[in-house]
Order: sequence, then structure tokens, then C-alpha cells
Amino acid sequence: MSNKRTEISELGEFGLIDHLNSQVRIKNTSTIKGIGDDAAVIEAGDHVKVVTTDLLLEGVHFDLSYAPLTHVGFKAVAVNVSDVAAMNAIPKQITVSIALSNRFSVEAVDALYEGINAACEHYGVDLVGGDTTASRGGLIISVTAIGEAKKEQLSYRSGAKVNDILCVTGDLGAALVGLQILEREKQVYLANPDMKPDLEKYTVVTSRQLKPDARMDIIHELRDLGVVPTSMMDVSDGLASEIFHICKASQVGATIYEDKLPIDKQTFDTAVELNLDPITCVLNGGEDYELLFTIDQKDFAKLEKHPDIHFIGHITKPEEGKYLVTKSGTAVQLKAQGWKHF
Amino acid sequence: MSNKRTEISELGEFGLIDHLNSQVRIKNTSTIKGIGDDAAVIEAGDHVKVVTTDLLLEGVHFDLSYAPLTHVGFKAVAVNVSDVAAMNAIPKQITVSIALSNRFSVEAVDALYEGINAACEHYGVDLVGGDTTASRGGLIISVTAIGEAKKEQLSYRSGAKVNDILCVTGDLGAALVGLQILEREKQVYLANPDMKPDLEKYTVVTSRQLKPDARMDIIHELRDLGVVPTSMMDVSDGLASEIFHICKASQVGATIYEDKLPIDKQTFDTAVELNLDPITCVLNGGEDYELLFTIDQKDFAKLEKHPDIHFIGHITKPEEGKYLVTKSGTAVQLKAQGWKHF
Repeated sequence: MSNKRTEISELGEFGLIDHLNSQVRIKNTSTIKGIGDDAAVIEAGDHVKVVTTDLLLEGVHFDLSYAPLTHVGFKAVAVNVSDVAAMNAIPKQITVSIALSNRFSVEAVDALYEGINAACEHYGVDLVGGDTTASRGGLIISVTAIGEAKKEQLSYRSGAKVNDILCVTGDLGAALVGLQILEREKQVYLANPDMKPDLEKYTVVTSRQLKPDARMDIIHELRDLGVVPTSMMDVSDGLASEIFHICKASQVGATIYEDKLPIDKQTFDTAVELNLDPITCVLNGGEDYELLFTIDQKDFAKLEKHPDIHFIGHITKPEEGKYLVTKSGTAVQLKAQGWKHF
Repeated sequence: MSNKRTEISELGEFGLIDHLNSQVRIKNTSTIKGIGDDAAVIEAGDHVKVVTTDLLLEGVHFDLSYAPLTHVGFKAVAVNVSDVAAMNAIPKQITVSIALSNRFSVEAVDALYEGINAACEHYGVDLVGGDTTASRGGLIISVTAIGEAKKEQLSYRSGAKVNDILCVTGDLGAALVGLQILEREKQVYLANPDMKPDLEKYTVVTSRQLKPDARMDIIHELRDLGVVPTSMMDVSDGLASEIFHICKASQVGATIYEDKLPIDKQTFDTAVELNLDPITCVLNGGEDYELLFTIDQKDFAKLEKHPDIHFIGHITKPEEGKYLVTKSGTAVQLKAQGWKHF
């Protein structure tokens, strides 16, 4: 090692990942897709396996002062299932590794696994392995999910074509707004432990933050309707950031329309209460775990009436850039300001 | 959650794992084997995939005051490859997730990945995914490895039969003795930072601790010789503990012979220097990552002359128990004292 010291913050999370990935070389013919999508793709005889993994740390990804352990367990599974969904695959197996300090009792571990097992039940996945170890710090959870698909059913980030329709499921921004509420109530509680946090009017946004649901329902419906998205990813870092990823991987541009962006009423009202711009929450809020995908125009009629799929824009030529058309009709350049961990 | 608080130490690591696993229910037909072996087994068309995962924490599994980051990266891959080998499968893909604090520079991350990439090259596996995040504490590494085998080639822990021969590769106890030396020199250094650690005469044992090699060479040789072990696992917790696992899973007993146990001369001499009983190091030292397996007697002739496979005993009926026959001819009951993390 040389004596030069470069801070990770100089590269940023995505820069560091790009830097590390540039050194990776694929050797096995069974590796169909390595790093660079929501999940890796591996040959498996008559079908393919997709593999994805997430590492969740107390104090970085969850705060046990307001996140119940059962929800943390559920979410740890759900975020990985969401990455499998984003490949248009069906999750089948997960492994869960945990590191615990002696702060945690067996009852606490049971609460965590109650959530993990509930998520396994909900998504139809089998918990097939893992590792359990001591931690000197907080709780650490590492989940790997494995899913299945026929090769021709997969949706990569790289398949979007000019004139495809950009679709997003559910509504966006709720998880970010929920996090702000939970953080605010935590500060209130820390300042005065006799104060009871008043969370009743915020259940939509807080539960989206604490216990998001991967959109496997949409994946199954798309199959039933015979629609294979031309590209797809899940919205974990924020809509704008994900659109950038799809545009980069597919070498296309995109235009989206402010008046088409889905936002829940409670999310909107709470954002305003918190002095946050609701549209900024929709564009840059992370952790919604909705699906962002593109479809060929020929498939539009099949999805047109779906109550939970929103058509927010379309794919353009790469030189046309990435734009948001505001309600007033002005086209403003999209900026990708996803969640930064570094 | 009730108000009862049970300490994890009351159950122990294996007790906690058993407790959690008792709640797991397998739902998918593609899950051939879930928790309970060195790796899970998943149906994959004409073959099967094996999946294993390990979570490694700074301060628990490695100490950066003496473990170079390149070695830590190599070892993180090797220990997972070893679990794939223990199923008699060939590793093909890995995912690597890391959590880093700002203590780590880009150059430090590069050193870690130099080791990870070197191990990928050495074992012929592809790095296909992972997660990179910030940590508030030390370095965390989570690796998942995926391997391939034909279903009939797999060696489970549960296949040992009465009269099978117990085999072990390489030599044992070195990694534990190496750890003791590294810890001793660390204390010397901490007491007097001007003292240069004197590690030159201990390279065998220290390099076994710092950069163990998974025995894929043996797996390939067994294939070439047409030998499928009736049961197998890798020696990560200690020989005695692993024999207990095989006996429990296979519902058999075992007798091993002290004079057949393989120990390297430097390991022996260093153990004596450290006032450790060399045989105790062989029986209970962890992290050697050698392979322990059983073969049918008909296969003995094929392996008899192998320089690195040792025939340490045989499988008996369950009611005959688990015994070590000492050099003096006394049979003493084996005790499983594997490494305890809790």
C-alpha cells in the first residue's frame, strides 16, 4: 500500500463501487450478469437464478429507538425481495446473517426473527442459511436473496428503448417523510422523556419507513397480463437517481411529468407540515421500494386501467437528456440526489 | 415481547441457532436442503446450486493490528469457498458486502479488494454483487458463495455409515497456534512499541491464521479419482466439534486415534513453546479450513497413497459413542469444545 490517502467521500458511494467494479473480471460461463443491476444472474439449467444482497446496520439503516425489531426483521427481507422483484423474478430462498452484542436478549432475537419469518411467509421464500456471531457494537443484518425466472422474463436496467413508457407503482416520498417524523418525535422524546410521541396521524408514512412491502403483487400481475417490462429497478435511492441508472444502463434519455408523479395525501400534507417540498420528496426520497419500469407502447393497453401503476413519462434519445416537466409546463433538468451513505 | 430476558449466553451459539431454526418452515420445492449443513442446496435444472454465507467483523473475526487487509479480503472469500468445498461442490460466484467507517481510505479498500480479487482468481469464482455502506464502527465483511454440483456428487454431513473411514486433509491446530503467536506479539508491541515483533520462525502457523487456503485441490482430486465422500464438512470450529456434527447428523459414533492426527512440526513446537497441549490444539483449534470427511471402505485403496489425506479413525454405531484412543491405548471420550463466539 502506498502512503497516499484518498478519502472515500472524495469518490462517493457510487464512485467507490465503480472503482471497485472496474477491477472485476468474470471467468465462469454460468455468470450471465455480474455487478451492475438490482441482482446478479446465474445460469441454472432450464432457468436462471438471480442473487442480491444487502447489509443493514443499526445506527445507519435503522434506529432501534423507534424501529421495532419485528419490523427491522421484516424490512431486511423485504428490501432484498424488492431487488429480486426488480429483475422480474420470483424470490425463493434467503440467507440471513446476524451479529449481536450482549445488549440483545434471546427475546429480542426472537422478535427480530418473528419479522424475518413473517416476511418469508408473506413472500413465499425459504430461510435456508446464515451465520450468527457476536458483535461489539450494534445489530448487523446481512441478507442474501435468491430468485428464479425464465431467462426471457428478466428485466434489466439496460433494456429501455426510445418511446417506451416510464411507469411507477404505488406512491413515492412516503418513506422519507416517515423517517423525518420518526426522527422529529425521537428528538422530542429525548428532550423530554415524559412526552408521548404523537404518531397516530402519521401511520401511512411511518409504516412505509418501518415496514415497507416489496411489490411482488405487481410482478405476479405483470406475468398474468403477459407484460415483460423492457427495463426495471426498485426505488430504493430515490426516483430521480433510479431514472439516471436506467438512462445510463440503457443509453437513453427520459422525460417525466410533475403532474403524473404519485404522492399519497398524508405524505403530501406531512411534507408541507415539515416544510419539505412534496415533489422533492417524491423525486429524491429513498426507501419507498416501489417499482420503476418501462414498457413497450404496445403493452400500454394491458396496464392502462391498473389502479396502482402510474405512467409518469417516456424514454427519449440520449441526447435529449433527462427532464422533469413541471405543472406550469417548464422543462427542468433532473438531478440525481439519491441517498448518500458516505 | 414479554418482559422475560434470557441471555444469549444461556443458549450458546449453537443453542441459539437451533432455537431459531426450529421456527423455520420450508415451502419451495426448489429448496433441497435448508439450514443444517455447510451450505444450503437449491435445485437448478440439471444440477444443484449450493449457497453459504459468512459474516466477518473487525475485532471479532480479525484484528487489523496484525492482519493485513489483503489477507483479510482473501480469507473472507476462502472461508466461504471452504464451505462450498465441504459440500463437494465447485464455487462459481460470490457476493461481497462491506461496511466501512471513515477511518478507511480508498487505498485501504483497494488493499482489501486486492485480496478478494486474488482469492476470486485463485478459486475461479466471479464477484457478482454486493453492497457497500458506511459503518460507525469497524470493518464488516459479509460474503455469500454459490457453487455447483451434480446432485449425486454432494456430500452432506448426514451420510456417514458404520465402518466408513474418517479422513482429514493437511494438518490441524496451526491456525489456533498462529493466533496465539500473533496475540502474544501484539501484547509485546503494545507494551513497548519499539520492539519489533519476531514472527520469522512462525510463518507456517501465522500464515495459516491470516491467509488460510480452502482445500479445493482435494475436491478436484476426489473427482478425478471418482471418490464421493459419504459425508463431509470443513474444520472451522475444531476437529472434535466437527466430528460431533457429523455423528449427530449421521446418527453414528466415531473412534479416532491420537497417533493418526496430523500436526505440522512448527505447530507442535510452537504449541509446546506456548505451554499448549499440541493434541488439544489439533482437536479444538478452529479455523484450519481443512476437510473432514468419511469414505466407504471400498474407496480406501484410491486414496491410500495420497500424501495429504490422513485416515484418523472410523465410524461406529451410535451407541458406541465418540472416542479418542490415545497413544497409550486408552479410549477417552471426545469433548466438543469448538470456538465460542458468545
